[in-house]
Amino acid sequence: MKNQEHILIIGAGLCGSLLALRMAQRGYRVTLMEKRPDLRKEVIDSGRSINLAFSDRGMKGLRLAGLEEKVLPLCIPMRGRMIHSADGQLFMSPYSGRSYEYINSISREDLNVMLLDECEKMPEITMLFNQRCTGVTLETAEATFEDYHTKEIKSYQADVVMGADGVGSALRKSMLDHRKFLFSYGQDFLTHGYKELSFPPLGNGGYQVEKNALHIWPRGKDMMIALPNLDGSFTVTLFLSWEEGKDSFESLNSDAAVTDYFEREFPDALALMPDLLEEFKTNPTSPLGTIKCSPWHAYGKVLLLGDAAHGIVPFYGQGMNSAFEDIFVLDRYIDKHEGDWKAIFKAYQDERKEDTDAIADLAVDNFHEMKAHTARPIFQEKRKLEIAFEEQFPKEYFSKYSLVTFREDLRYSEAMRRGRVQDKAILNLIHDGKFTDAMSLHDKLDLVKQETRKMLHDDEVVEGLEED
Amino acid sequence: MKNQEHILIIGAGLCGSLLALRMAQRGYRVTLMEKRPDLRKEVIDSGRSINLAFSDRGMKGLRLAGLEEKVLPLCIPMRGRMIHSADGQLFMSPYSGRSYEYINSISREDLNVMLLDECEKMPEITMLFNQRCTGVTLETAEATFEDYHTKEIKSYQADVVMGADGVGSALRKSMLDHRKFLFSYGQDFLTHGYKELSFPPLGNGGYQVEKNALHIWPRGKDMMIALPNLDGSFTVTLFLSWEEGKDSFESLNSDAAVTDYFEREFPDALALMPDLLEEFKTNPTSPLGTIKCSPWHAYGKVLLLGDAAHGIVPFYGQGMNSAFEDIFVLDRYIDKHEGDWKAIFKAYQDERKEDTDAIADLAVDNFHEMKAHTARPIFQEKRKLEIAFEEQFPKEYFSKYSLVTFREDLRYSEAMRRGRVQDKAILNLIHDGKFTDAMSLHDKLDLVKQETRKMLHDDEVVEGLEED
Repeated sequence: MKNQEHILIIGAGLCGSLLALRMAQRGYRVTLMEKRPDLRKEVIDSGRSINLAFSDRGMKGLRLAGLEEKVLPLCIPMRGRMIHSADGQLFMSPYSGRSYEYINSISREDLNVMLLDECEKMPEITMLFNQRCTGVTLETAEATFEDYHTKEIKSYQADVVMGADGVGSALRKSMLDHRKFLFSYGQDFLTHGYKELSFPPLGNGGYQVEKNALHIWPRGKDMMIALPNLDGSFTVTLFLSWEEGKDSFESLNSDAAVTDYFEREFPDALALMPDLLEEFKTNPTSPLGTIKCSPWHAYGKVLLLGDAAHGIVPFYGQGMNSAFEDIFVLDRYIDKHEGDWKAIFKAYQDERKEDTDAIADLAVDNFHEMKAHTARPIFQEKRKLEIAFEEQFPKEYFSKYSLVTFREDLRYSEAMRRGRVQDKAILNLIHDGKFTDAMSLHDKLDLVKQETRKMLHDDEVVEGLEED
Repeated sequence: MKNQEHILIIGAGLCGSLLALRMAQRGYRVTLMEKRPDLRKEVIDSGRSINLAFSDRGMKGLRLAGLEEKVLPLCIPMRGRMIHSADGQLFMSPYSGRSYEYINSISREDLNVMLLDECEKMPEITMLFNQRCTGVTLETAEATFEDYHTKEIKSYQADVVMGADGVGSALRKSMLDHRKFLFSYGQDFLTHGYKELSFPPLGNGGYQVEKNALHIWPRGKDMMIALPNLDGSFTVTLFLSWEEGKDSFESLNSDAAVTDYFEREFPDALALMPDLLEEFKTNPTSPLGTIKCSPWHAYGKVLLLGDAAHGIVPFYGQGMNSAFEDIFVLDRYIDKHEGDWKAIFKAYQDERKEDTDAIADLAVDNFHEMKAHTARPIFQEKRKLEIAFEEQFPKEYFSKYSLVTFREDLRYSEAMRRGRVQDKAILNLIHDGKFTDAMSLHDKLDLVKQETRKMLHDDEVVEGLEED
């Protein structure tokens, strides 16, 4: 029976193509529809950032589909944040004290090509490109598409429609416009936008700055980052206010203004950017927004996944990772309730919504942490202590960053709850001078654990988690 | 100059009519447009709840317009929550230990009539009814309306357009559809809806239950409340899940199911509701949602106020109060920047958004507190202690409820910050058995203050409010 069921997936980006592959592996018949041309045949501007941070939760999704070995050659390990301070100092802040824990820079396009190639091998999957979804009839799982070239409109009847069609999701729009059930929806933009720039490779294909790091220039209100690419170049992203404050995308309206700003704020980077002025003019400035909505499903016929269900800002490097983890969690509920899509979708959202809300909020928090806090002495002291804990007591201590990024066995919501309280405990212990020279590192760890436990207890009492 | 400026206000509900009055008092020429008929001439169903809780922040707005004496005859003081427990016990939980602090039940219609009558007296105000706004051109402050009777479409040119047109705001829709600036927008529905019911008055016009209280039947997942009206009746509101759980609006689909549910959950109330079955069938079931958006203004030409800018759920009784406080805050910024609407609107939102976000979140919290926590022993013990503090040390202690409701000198955001931490401190002290019989009441207060200060300090360190 299930082998005859037909799943139509909107969007052949990272989420949609992995989803198609996994559903085909389970034996479903899959139609995978993509608005853009086949990126394996045409050079296209996806409108999205060029590279991404790939880590453990994303790997969990790829491993499910048997792709662990295929992704590794695409990865450039980034072992920490290389902080470029305002006075020109460099400071490497590792992501973890456990040497086997790091994140990876990966090209969106390379990863997508690999996934589409895998889809191509599956006879269960039909892939159609240049098909823009114009709407979905929710009750009947009928989706309508316009062909980019012929302008022909055609409807497809499926058993279920899954929307992996990103932040501008056509399926989500059909749900918002449906008006037969209450649809909670939020789009929340930061006051900052972003623009992609670059460091070119060295003549020999080498890297102009440390390859195995995510470079950050934290400047309080603004921030610039750089991620390595396989060809020796770096993709550089400037995060800057649209219009508020002394420097903004609005105020950087001439070559002189751009040059002056980079000379003041990022002199070391400026020296590596021969094409800065051209790129600054040519490349678009894009918004940074969080999308939340509920329900993700309707009538047991349609389901939103990935960015379509939960668009997040990029500051925790978890956008793609959370989308791949979505597929892992959905797969588990298909195991449990196979044959009953309504039950699958409900159980999936009941578990997953809390976690994607958590990573959305953590990502916004991390924006403030990256652009401002990484430059503060108390934060640097905290990170040094945390790395020491993780090095010396690798099974006893996990920083908030590690809980979120490397502990793929923990839900995002639990990583957030524990991680936030632990951060609060450790920052207060530093601030209040509770760590003394006489204490061993393990004494310090015990103090952090004790204070964290007390704070968690305080929270649980007020949330009614503990009995009266 | 300012006397010649023309303000067009969309919506002659509570917020719009008070806003019109205040702007006219300041000397502006005002056109007040209302979608519905004049409620002083026709009986209309506003689609909104019949009565409201009126308190100090609302009074601040009315006082500004010189209406303090006019509103008092419309008010029925409610001195506390009369809790009807599942086992039939009654328990009065005062809103404050200070006898002069209470909230008031007031009829939405009576208050609106009073405000419209005051507007009528002002030669600066032109009022037009049956005018549905079909859109606003933001850059030019031109608003278009359709006449309900003639279907005639007419545009009005103003210097500024203010949208006080409620949760379904036409101005907000024009801003969302404008697409020339980033517009953050969220609509967030609770899983519960509500239905209004009633207790009729006694034959002599008296009240069937205690007049000077807000009655609550907290039942964990569901809740019913009742507010007194001047004619001896009570407006009763049932808050119930749409479709989840054993009892829901979906499951109460027959007279037998409704009767069975009320017999089980609210037997004392059922005895007072002769028209229950008829009302349950006839009255609509309505959603409960929070609306947040930003920016509230554009081009120095348009501004959203009240529910149009920030729709909140009713559980803190602050919807109308926050709208009236909006007008108070706006008025202060007009004092400061008169002649420069762009500066007025920006400064207004810069201060006010944080506060309306806070009351929106507090109102959702209070839903959970009212339906579930009011029935928990630890919560009742906390309230008893807080009332004792407020009675004995009225200048030293203010509960979260008092901070939000009665301390109109404090911003909502500050009331939330202090109130939440204080709740956490006091609940933990009770839970952990830190209050002993040997302690005097003032000793207990000192302990609460000390624990609250410590927790506030911990939060401030992590938020970077204290120096490294």
